[in-house]
Amino acid sequence: MSETPSIDTVRRLAERHSNWGRWGADDEKGTLNLVRPEMVAAASRLVERGVTISMALPYDDAGPQTGGLGRFNPIHLMIRDGADVIAGSSVRDFYGGDDRHFRGTDDIIIMPLQSGTQWDAPGHVIFEDTMYNGFGAEWVSSKGALHGSISNATNSMVGRGVLLDIPRALDVDWLEPGHAIDGDQLQKAADMASVELGPGDFVFVRTGAITKARAAGEWGDYAGGSAPGLGLGSVDWIADHDIAAVAADTWGLEVRPNETPDTGQPLHIIFIHAMGLWLGEIFDLDPLATDCADDGRYEFFFAGPPLPFTRAVGSPLNPMAIK
Amino acid sequence: MSETPSIDTVRRLAERHSNWGRWGADDEKGTLNLVRPEMVAAASRLVERGVTISMALPYDDAGPQTGGLGRFNPIHLMIRDGADVIAGSSVRDFYGGDDRHFRGTDDIIIMPLQSGTQWDAPGHVIFEDTMYNGFGAEWVSSKGALHGSISNATNSMVGRGVLLDIPRALDVDWLEPGHAIDGDQLQKAADMASVELGPGDFVFVRTGAITKARAAGEWGDYAGGSAPGLGLGSVDWIADHDIAAVAADTWGLEVRPNETPDTGQPLHIIFIHAMGLWLGEIFDLDPLATDCADDGRYEFFFAGPPLPFTRAVGSPLNPMAIK
Amino acid sequence: MSETPSIDTVRRLAERHSNWGRWGADDEKGTLNLVRPEMVAAASRLVERGVTISMALPYDDAGPQTGGLGRFNPIHLMIRDGADVIAGSSVRDFYGGDDRHFRGTDDIIIMPLQSGTQWDAPGHVIFEDTMYNGFGAEWVSSKGALHGSISNATNSMVGRGVLLDIPRALDVDWLEPGHAIDGDQLQKAADMASVELGPGDFVFVRTGAITKARAAGEWGDYAGGSAPGLGLGSVDWIADHDIAAVAADTWGLEVRPNETPDTGQPLHIIFIHAMGLWLGEIFDLDPLATDCADDGRYEFFFAGPPLPFTRAVGSPLNPMAIK
Amino acid sequence: MSETPSIDTVRRLAERHSNWGRWGADDEKGTLNLVRPEMVAAASRLVERGVTISMALPYDDAGPQTGGLGRFNPIHLMIRDGADVIAGSSVRDFYGGDDRHFRGTDDIIIMPLQSGTQWDAPGHVIFEDTMYNGFGAEWVSSKGALHGSISNATNSMVGRGVLLDIPRALDVDWLEPGHAIDGDQLQKAADMASVELGPGDFVFVRTGAITKARAAGEWGDYAGGSAPGLGLGSVDWIADHDIAAVAADTWGLEVRPNETPDTGQPLHIIFIHAMGLWLGEIFDLDPLATDCADDGRYEFFFAGPPLPFTRAVGSPLNPMAIK
Repeated sequence: MSETPSIDTVRRLAERHSNWGRWGADDEKGTLNLVRPEMVAAASRLVERGVTISMALPYDDAGPQTGGLGRFNPIHLMIRDGADVIAGSSVRDFYGGDDRHFRGTDDIIIMPLQSGTQWDAPGHVIFEDTMYNGFGAEWVSSKGALHGSISNATNSMVGRGVLLDIPRALDVDWLEPGHAIDGDQLQKAADMASVELGPGDFVFVRTGAITKARAAGEWGDYAGGSAPGLGLGSVDWIADHDIAAVAADTWGLEVRPNETPDTGQPLHIIFIHAMGLWLGEIFDLDPLATDCADDGRYEFFFAGPPLPFTRAVGSPLNPMAIK
Repeated sequence: MSETPSIDTVRRLAERHSNWGRWGADDEKGTLNLVRPEMVAAASRLVERGVTISMALPYDDAGPQTGGLGRFNPIHLMIRDGADVIAGSSVRDFYGGDDRHFRGTDDIIIMPLQSGTQWDAPGHVIFEDTMYNGFGAEWVSSKGALHGSISNATNSMVGRGVLLDIPRALDVDWLEPGHAIDGDQLQKAADMASVELGPGDFVFVRTGAITKARAAGEWGDYAGGSAPGLGLGSVDWIADHDIAAVAADTWGLEVRPNETPDTGQPLHIIFIHAMGLWLGEIFDLDPLATDCADDGRYEFFFAGPPLPFTRAVGSPLNPMAIK
Repeated sequence: MSETPSIDTVRRLAERHSNWGRWGADDEKGTLNLVRPEMVAAASRLVERGVTISMALPYDDAGPQTGGLGRFNPIHLMIRDGADVIAGSSVRDFYGGDDRHFRGTDDIIIMPLQSGTQWDAPGHVIFEDTMYNGFGAEWVSSKGALHGSISNATNSMVGRGVLLDIPRALDVDWLEPGHAIDGDQLQKAADMASVELGPGDFVFVRTGAITKARAAGEWGDYAGGSAPGLGLGSVDWIADHDIAAVAADTWGLEVRPNETPDTGQPLHIIFIHAMGLWLGEIFDLDPLATDCADDGRYEFFFAGPPLPFTRAVGSPLNPMAIK
Repeated sequence: MSETPSIDTVRRLAERHSNWGRWGADDEKGTLNLVRPEMVAAASRLVERGVTISMALPYDDAGPQTGGLGRFNPIHLMIRDGADVIAGSSVRDFYGGDDRHFRGTDDIIIMPLQSGTQWDAPGHVIFEDTMYNGFGAEWVSSKGALHGSISNATNSMVGRGVLLDIPRALDVDWLEPGHAIDGDQLQKAADMASVELGPGDFVFVRTGAITKARAAGEWGDYAGGSAPGLGLGSVDWIADHDIAAVAADTWGLEVRPNETPDTGQPLHIIFIHAMGLWLGEIFDLDPLATDCADDGRYEFFFAGPPLPFTRAVGSPLNPMAIK
């Protein structure tokens, strides 16, 4: 692209790849409609060694959040604990039977649903006055998302997973902030993986951003700052392959700073708002990348449903690659 | 059992089936050690139709909790919403680009980790002064569980799943509160399912308690009250099959009132504290039961890892049956 | 009133007593403008015995909330506790100096700001499209109240307090649900108290609703159900006295069921939206009432500022009567 | 003191000034016992101009906390808002009457009780195995403080307030981190104020730490870092005057780094654990200091009760100086 991209570029790409109405006027599932049962069955055949690899970053106070966008790291607190038993405090609130025999411990979490490894729901993105498939923005009010909620994926997010390890394909340790991944680079990683992408696939794009943070020993501005990621040049490639979802190891999936000076998060507009494509963020792809490099197989059975938080616009999850 | 069971009964069963030291003095994974990769690979072969069925109850304010044990239903709140866009409020806190183009919505959850569909971690149960494998209760302090945390299952909870549909095996709609399921009833359900249980299996015991609440249109005392569930008579059967985990559709897995007047939750002591067996609770097994009754197949590929909340003693999840 | 009151009644009363523009087009302080320094100084002269009486209900899980309107009782959790010290757990997270010497304990609260003893801020009430003094409703968005927040009272809520003990004036233990207090009853209580109400006063109206709940040993539907309280017949009296604030011992100050079938909370509309009058709810007036009955003095020095929660529409407080 | 202070110094001072048993073996009120009604009445006579000055820092996300000790800035979220009304979203959850007429807005706070302007309760400090007056540390368990809670001050914290403006007395803008205030400096500020301290007084020690942060435009390590504050050399002066409470404009009241290499927070041990003295922290004393410098009067009527959070070890408040 020789000219500076703008909101007009975004509008053109959005129009070209729009899925509004493709699965009906009431559709809220978007690209998850592409995952058909026979694909799930076929994907299960990819399991050979029986190895299970989590792509979740631990949810705790050592996470990457620094408060931006109202997002903070999960706050974990105990309701009842074991030290009380040793100290003798617990005799005052035991439940059931003899006080000295049994005590259950309990805990609580307070967390923004998009503070760690997460799926974005369709209702996460408002463009002008609407969300995906034309539902009005007013459906996501202070009472939550009555349309476009994460619940649309409760019974889904299972199928063929493919890792596209961009730094490995480009022979670097990690991509630098500002690196805009395009279709050629995605194809190069697919070629390296000897995988042909297709409809209903779950695609995981590694940038090495978490690798870099680990090497530095600190998150820095990982959550909200400059980052490598998908650029406008990746849109046609992503859209043409009709994939079910794409996730990355960065806070926002797309390259930052954004390529469009006049609008933020242009790929969120195109992917979520126009296409109904499901996006995953802050996936820790390092253990999976190591395993794929070791056995040379970049496709796997994927199971990564969100938690069914009613009326939520995002959800933490423990995405699992099974090889 | 002709005599009233007591804490002595519990001690005898605990001693008979103890797994302390079985996988080393430092083990915190308990029965998840039984799941070997070849079992996972074999289980993946059970996928035929490519159907995915969630066993999670929605996490929301319509859940079963009423405040007992400090447990309440999840509280979901918006950080930024779409109504603000329509109302014009959002121009004051948009991020990126032109205010009128893009807005992300965000939300937050406040929830006890054991308020809905959940796994118990080993550190959830303190018996006298210790938890599973002898770690002192003081390791679960106000700072969380430094031993026995849910993180021990982050990369696991995948394998062969088997539904034991007790009401169907007994030809009733649901079991009544106080119904203690024993080994014979478990075996009867396994026979009906034409499944032979074995090491490393994930077993789901349906009592129909959620079915009953749905029929009544209200939870009543579902969370914390009387309930059908596993009784002391089920312990040998469960333990002898060396299963990896057992989950049920009740708040506490075991029959309530407990059979032991002098101690609460005797099976939690035997299963979690002595055996290191992973327990799941408030699993909604109704959709799965319907599907199993329809196709006559009660075994399936199971993927249900917890979320890796660091130092947590339990975790919500979206357990998935793939058939 | 011979006819059934309606939204038209509300509009007439609102128009009659509207304070919009009275203190300028930008005013957000409403009737707190009536409290002048000389009144505060004069009120301080009421202190004779040096007795201090709190009107706050304890904030805890034994409070009256049952979940209606998204309000729940305060959730109190420990971050660090003392049992950890006895159990030896705390050596792993002490701060400063020798581990065995010092440990601070810490705790956290999660609470709706209007779940207990509380002030309503002007932004708490939206009538049609606006709040008090004409600010648009969009100023109270998911980011909080940029107009009409509780912060407008940070340096105020100090002055002459007067208790109007209606049940005592009517010689009953408490008023029954549905009892609409009118101006005559308020005047009768003022006469019993030998107090003449005037501009800038803080008026506390006791209905005995908390007394009744205490006698019953349970809250029942105290929070959100039927209740005694101010009726439409009290509006002229309240408005004509130009008081600074009025608080009561019920969840919503006004009588329930409301007298207007076609709109909820009519007095909230008149008092907060039209007059900018500050309302207090769930004030525990029983200890104060006992003291006033004992010494025969119903006026006192009042100090009850809200906590300055930025952009909040309400606040808990510990209101203090000093006699 | 020519030698380096140590835990032995702390023990000597604690023994010299211990109030254990002074007000009975069961006492949990500590130095609040010193405030007698006649003092409150006398203090009310200090009100002349009728001016009310809050010493509370706003509670919001711009506060000083950075996560240390598990303390974070208050998180404020809306349950129901006004933008929903404008957007038309609210018709789906209005309560009462005609949907278009009335809507209440509601909000929620999540906050560590010691994250902003705060009182410490006696149970906040554990020294070795006990808290003030010998109650065992196990009384502050994961269920909260069954002894030593903030509720002991619910009906108190009213009396004569005195501002000791140390930077003004020393003719500097603010004290630098590490500056240990001693008795001579306190006396110098009292002399400048022409006030003689006495039993039952509420003393506010200004260090200028908030002034400095304001000048810098950022909090930096205000919460938890080095700070000016009371030193061991202030203990005799504070103790000999038998004051009711002392509060400062720093996160921890005492000088940091602490003077005792072998124990943290030595004055917390002496003041809270041994003396039962109530400590206040993060009081914003700048507006009060300006007013006192203007009118030359450093004594005032003080009203600053905590909120009665049951079993809490601290509380936010809106402390009010009335002059």
